[in-house]
Amino acid sequence: MILTVTLNAALDITYRVPRLRAHHSHRITEAIERPGGKGLNVARVLATLGHDTVATGLIGGATGAALRDQLGSYPGVADAFVPIAGTTRRTVGVVDASTGDTTQLNEPGPLVSAAEWAAFADRYAELLDGAAAVALCGSLPPGVPVGAYAQLIRAAHGAHVPVLLDTSGEPLRRGIAARPDVIKPNADELAALTGSTEPVRAAREARRRGAHAVAASLGPEGLLAITPDGAWRAAPPSRIAGNPTGAGDSAVAGLLSGLAEGLPWPDRLARAVALSAATVRAPVAGEYDEATYAQLLPQVRVSPHPAAA
Amino acid sequence: MILTVTLNAALDITYRVPRLRAHHSHRITEAIERPGGKGLNVARVLATLGHDTVATGLIGGATGAALRDQLGSYPGVADAFVPIAGTTRRTVGVVDASTGDTTQLNEPGPLVSAAEWAAFADRYAELLDGAAAVALCGSLPPGVPVGAYAQLIRAAHGAHVPVLLDTSGEPLRRGIAARPDVIKPNADELAALTGSTEPVRAAREARRRGAHAVAASLGPEGLLAITPDGAWRAAPPSRIAGNPTGAGDSAVAGLLSGLAEGLPWPDRLARAVALSAATVRAPVAGEYDEATYAQLLPQVRVSPHPAAA
Repeated sequence: MILTVTLNAALDITYRVPRLRAHHSHRITEAIERPGGKGLNVARVLATLGHDTVATGLIGGATGAALRDQLGSYPGVADAFVPIAGTTRRTVGVVDASTGDTTQLNEPGPLVSAAEWAAFADRYAELLDGAAAVALCGSLPPGVPVGAYAQLIRAAHGAHVPVLLDTSGEPLRRGIAARPDVIKPNADELAALTGSTEPVRAAREARRRGAHAVAASLGPEGLLAITPDGAWRAAPPSRIAGNPTGAGDSAVAGLLSGLAEGLPWPDRLARAVALSAATVRAPVAGEYDEATYAQLLPQVRVSPHPAAA
Repeated sequence: MILTVTLNAALDITYRVPRLRAHHSHRITEAIERPGGKGLNVARVLATLGHDTVATGLIGGATGAALRDQLGSYPGVADAFVPIAGTTRRTVGVVDASTGDTTQLNEPGPLVSAAEWAAFADRYAELLDGAAAVALCGSLPPGVPVGAYAQLIRAAHGAHVPVLLDTSGEPLRRGIAARPDVIKPNADELAALTGSTEPVRAAREARRRGAHAVAASLGPEGLLAITPDGAWRAAPPSRIAGNPTGAGDSAVAGLLSGLAEGLPWPDRLARAVALSAATVRAPVAGEYDEATYAQLLPQVRVSPHPAAA
């Protein structure tokens, strides 16, 4: 079983309008609602890949109930969320049909009490028992200590469960010091963490700060990995056009499933890049196109990188 | 008891962002959720004025449950909503804190089945028994027949309950033919209905088409009323600055409460204009400032209008 943690789950709402004009009134032509938050996206992809997946995190209120309702219809994802008194946040993406651009509005998330955080930590410790790997994903809601991920990483180490951390800002900075097995920052997150905009230099610096392995996503150019076993670049065979929403979460699912299956790094990277590209190509944001994945997987170019591991 | 009907109730969400930029991502600094839909706004004002108020309409899904939860905490408004299988819509207003302007996104509303509409009509007929007046407010959700308001007006007449209609477009056009006691269009709605942008001419035409009395809201200039008892202009003592959201609904509450209390038209109009101005002045959109109302009420200028009734 693979465990995913989504502390700041969200109900993702997508609105389509013919044309978005700031400070005007709009009639929405299409509204789609789905469970969101990076860890839930990762869980969905893991389940589609055939892995037993358990999704945990914090959830509450009417939006939380709506989210759980929908989660119940996902095959292969077991709901192990911990209830809180606050209300799970919404994110609203407004798609301008005239340009395809999206305007994003993200609620901050519910206030979590110390008792709720302690209850979550207990539940998480139980769930680690039997997990082959764990992914810690996304932002922290208000009230959760900024060192939360460091605490969860230490607990995973204690249970001998490998852990991947995918977050940003201060939670990443604090988390990395607890020595996660893998981090998957994008170039911006890596630059914000290390002060360096040169990915190889920044990835090395992130390892120096505690990450065992760094798999940095470089957008359409694929992944750069610097690990204890070596360093690689992995790139799709050609530039893929489409919607990048969720592509990073699919990459996490690729890395984590490969880790849980004991695949060598080059195979994990190929899987992550192919899943990521198949997500960009999918018609629905945040899902991946299975045919594209099967087609791209053998075509991903993985090459050793001269960067010293 | 005064009955209000909100067929397309809404959960009104207001987001505040430091500055809204189309096609960018925003962190919301403040999110407020409240029951919405014109009829519910009218019910809230009626209850604050001290009237026993019953709110009915159609409601469903997770947003409907959230709305009912909040409605339960309104003193003086009894919840007589009829459940439907579909999900009550949301409206999202995004306030740009740098300018105070609002960008509005309105979901269309749930699809209502013929059986649900029939169940509502039965419940409405029961509620008319004992009502001193009824307000029919706002848009129709998909599936409700476009002649719905005409049907509800005829039922009110059959029960000898005076009825005010506040809607727009085709539902107004069809409703007016069933001879509502009062309509309260704004200048744009009146122009769309009659083809005339001159309010006196347009109000007369609306009466010719079936409305017994027309109280047209002219924004900051107050109301123009053409009724079987005479014609009047009613205006606030000075221009009121603020947020006009809900001002029209407060005017409806003023007109309807005055009708239920048997007040003469000039007193109903003074109340409607004072409530409307006190709503513009209130810090929270859609509520009215009671002190401003008390202060403005004796200052509203109501003058007979030369338009022949």
